[in-house]
Amino acid sequence: MIKVTVWNEGRHEKISEEVRRVYPDGIHGALAAFLGTEEDITVRTATLDDPDCGLPQEVVDDTDVMLWWGHMAHGDVPDEVVERVANAVHAGMGLIVLHSGHHSKVFRRLMGTPCSLGWRENGDMERVWVVDPAHPITQGIDRYFELPHVETYAEPFSVPEPEKLLFIGSYEGGEVFRSGCLWRRGHGTVFYFQPGHETFPIYYEPAVQTVIKNAVRYCAPVIRQPITCPHIEKI
Amino acid sequence: MIKVTVWNEGRHEKISEEVRRVYPDGIHGALAAFLGTEEDITVRTATLDDPDCGLPQEVVDDTDVMLWWGHMAHGDVPDEVVERVANAVHAGMGLIVLHSGHHSKVFRRLMGTPCSLGWRENGDMERVWVVDPAHPITQGIDRYFELPHVETYAEPFSVPEPEKLLFIGSYEGGEVFRSGCLWRRGHGTVFYFQPGHETFPIYYEPAVQTVIKNAVRYCAPVIRQPITCPHIEKI
Amino acid sequence: MIKVTVWNEGRHEKISEEVRRVYPDGIHGALAAFLGTEEDITVRTATLDDPDCGLPQEVVDDTDVMLWWGHMAHGDVPDEVVERVANAVHAGMGLIVLHSGHHSKVFRRLMGTPCSLGWRENGDMERVWVVDPAHPITQGIDRYFELPHVETYAEPFSVPEPEKLLFIGSYEGGEVFRSGCLWRRGHGTVFYFQPGHETFPIYYEPAVQTVIKNAVRYCAPVIRQPITCPHIEKI
Amino acid sequence: MIKVTVWNEGRHEKISEEVRRVYPDGIHGALAAFLGTEEDITVRTATLDDPDCGLPQEVVDDTDVMLWWGHMAHGDVPDEVVERVANAVHAGMGLIVLHSGHHSKVFRRLMGTPCSLGWRENGDMERVWVVDPAHPITQGIDRYFELPHVETYAEPFSVPEPEKLLFIGSYEGGEVFRSGCLWRRGHGTVFYFQPGHETFPIYYEPAVQTVIKNAVRYCAPVIRQPITCPHIEKI
Repeated sequence: MIKVTVWNEGRHEKISEEVRRVYPDGIHGALAAFLGTEEDITVRTATLDDPDCGLPQEVVDDTDVMLWWGHMAHGDVPDEVVERVANAVHAGMGLIVLHSGHHSKVFRRLMGTPCSLGWRENGDMERVWVVDPAHPITQGIDRYFELPHVETYAEPFSVPEPEKLLFIGSYEGGEVFRSGCLWRRGHGTVFYFQPGHETFPIYYEPAVQTVIKNAVRYCAPVIRQPITCPHIEKI
Repeated sequence: MIKVTVWNEGRHEKISEEVRRVYPDGIHGALAAFLGTEEDITVRTATLDDPDCGLPQEVVDDTDVMLWWGHMAHGDVPDEVVERVANAVHAGMGLIVLHSGHHSKVFRRLMGTPCSLGWRENGDMERVWVVDPAHPITQGIDRYFELPHVETYAEPFSVPEPEKLLFIGSYEGGEVFRSGCLWRRGHGTVFYFQPGHETFPIYYEPAVQTVIKNAVRYCAPVIRQPITCPHIEKI
Repeated sequence: MIKVTVWNEGRHEKISEEVRRVYPDGIHGALAAFLGTEEDITVRTATLDDPDCGLPQEVVDDTDVMLWWGHMAHGDVPDEVVERVANAVHAGMGLIVLHSGHHSKVFRRLMGTPCSLGWRENGDMERVWVVDPAHPITQGIDRYFELPHVETYAEPFSVPEPEKLLFIGSYEGGEVFRSGCLWRRGHGTVFYFQPGHETFPIYYEPAVQTVIKNAVRYCAPVIRQPITCPHIEKI
Repeated sequence: MIKVTVWNEGRHEKISEEVRRVYPDGIHGALAAFLGTEEDITVRTATLDDPDCGLPQEVVDDTDVMLWWGHMAHGDVPDEVVERVANAVHAGMGLIVLHSGHHSKVFRRLMGTPCSLGWRENGDMERVWVVDPAHPITQGIDRYFELPHVETYAEPFSVPEPEKLLFIGSYEGGEVFRSGCLWRRGHGTVFYFQPGHETFPIYYEPAVQTVIKNAVRYCAPVIRQPITCPHIEKI
């Protein structure tokens, strides 16, 4: 059983009627809903305004794969929580960073780069293309899938060279973006997946749900063991 | 002084009036023309129908960077010439593979994969986007450049994961393609660059010429030394 | 159930009493013996002197993961068989290349490089160190394992940069070697693993058997689908 | 002219007579001395106890490549200085991290991982082996170079997979370590080089000096331009 914690900033839902209409149970609620129906996955949720961001040490320790969604309040996540999550990744926890989470403290902490990009919010259509059809994360997707209205993200995306590039998105304006990227950080696997938005109902799209479910299974820990700096004896 | 050999299959030019109209001196002639005006580059050309494909050992040995263009007659290149070129790359020669050269024997020999892709020939516009604005090969290019009419190439492109992805192309049909990719093979550097065609006048485009000139300089050998499998003594 | 085909050149066993004493059922027999006791693996074997190298199309098609051991007769493997195996890897079959298989036609075909190295055959002790303790292939191994007598392999190993480096070996002479390396080629995964020899009884070592069993499971296909170069319609 | 700033923590030199005997002008002094004789390099130095760590914005802005040596006082470097240096790397500045700098805040900030390793301080001999003989940074080095007495560093080294592995060190105890590794971070290049110590006179070794000089030239910026997150218009 893979233990998933869906973390959502959850602020848009509090201040915008429009967001609440799309995601009445919050973005975390929508993500947890489709993950929770999988037989090999159990889900809990946590948000920024929960005590300790909903991520006290015991919750993080009990999480195999964390999903991270944030946008307008990245700066409100305490550094202490960021370190807790980063350390869990180093020890083996999987992390799936969604959409505007590209600028979250947690993702930038793990990448070591600004993780910036070009952006435009005009509801363009996006086609998300499979680059590697034999990877576990792309299974169940044909050559591409379409999202009728999205926020456009454009290269250059200032992340370290992905260890594996899985998806490239293209937009009506002709922009392109590395929409699905994998890195290892310590013992853990990090997957960035660009689709998502607070007012476009992207997390209800079957293809997006398929990819996220695949990614949860792919990012599940092989081991869970903190990294140390041991003094060693001569053999 | 960087010694460049531009290799062109040269068959389209022989059978098609249309191709001759676009490239009256052959595709090799057009490539050699803009490279030859650079102060630090000397150019020779060679084609499939020259004796020994224009690539006898002494020419290959005297080449720092080779450009490779082929399309309709990949199978006519003798295996012996393919090995000669591959060995030169292993020893340090740079290789720039252009457009339909993705299916050349030389490129497939060096990649170890089919190097296949999806394609469509309807004169779509392409935008070629810079993924890494700080790489020597992308200097002089803004966020992107446009090619008014091209052959569409689409992912998946069955090459090994590029060691550095420099450009992604997008087409009017929404397709995407990893249009500029780098790999090392032995001591040599291989750059694949997708723009090009026999009837669209792509090698006259300033941005395309800029990238190819940058690539010649980047792929120039650091050393030129054949790879051996030495018996070693215990130190 | 993972279907494994262990391929062994099998010539040393025919001409050397010493090799027969170490591997009375051949190197393929020793590899098949420990793999065959795993509940999720079925094994067949094939050798160079079997009809069609023991690798007719139907056997290759029915193989999920192939092990490859060869040494003195790499050149006797027909190119047609090499292409059959390479195409199977491109379509998704896993390939585990052992020890002196570094110079096999199949491995060089898939890497695109000479795959050369420095070597010395004096029975040095080797320590094989884990570089990535959280990878599925290194599970069950502590910081390192020891092989009391081996053939020394030394850098530079002229392969493309490994997509994942898992083991580094060190020898009594102080040499080092990238002893466990992973690459993707098309839809398939290739693992090179340096331990092995025809007269040192290395395939009886528990740590070596653990790594090979892990690698069989890791390299099992995600999909099995030949790579094509489709003409595509504008969407 | 490449402008180099050698940064040294400089604390060992203040408290230890033994260190002062080996490096009478400080480790920064020894590094600056051999770099300063190069015609294409100008050097300045800076230390932890200088005002603003010797790294006010104008010094960082005026630096093409920074060398970083620290050991006992990593925690005393203010976060503000760490961010200033990391931002400069993102904008294009090269960074060469030496020996115990593996645990510096700056290096961990850029890698996103703990950068831990196993260690032992008993004056073993180290052989540093060239993995890639055709890389600009390994020029002038034969198959390996020897350091008579070093601190042993052992795998696993918890860094992201190097984009290019250049050196592997082996020690008398049989340990191995990825001693020379390259990564890109934003527009800048980061080189980690393991040789060095406060009491072993390693920075006087000609081979070590050769590698550091090569690395300075290799890591010099291609561009110097801060990374932004621009709002883009539809083309």
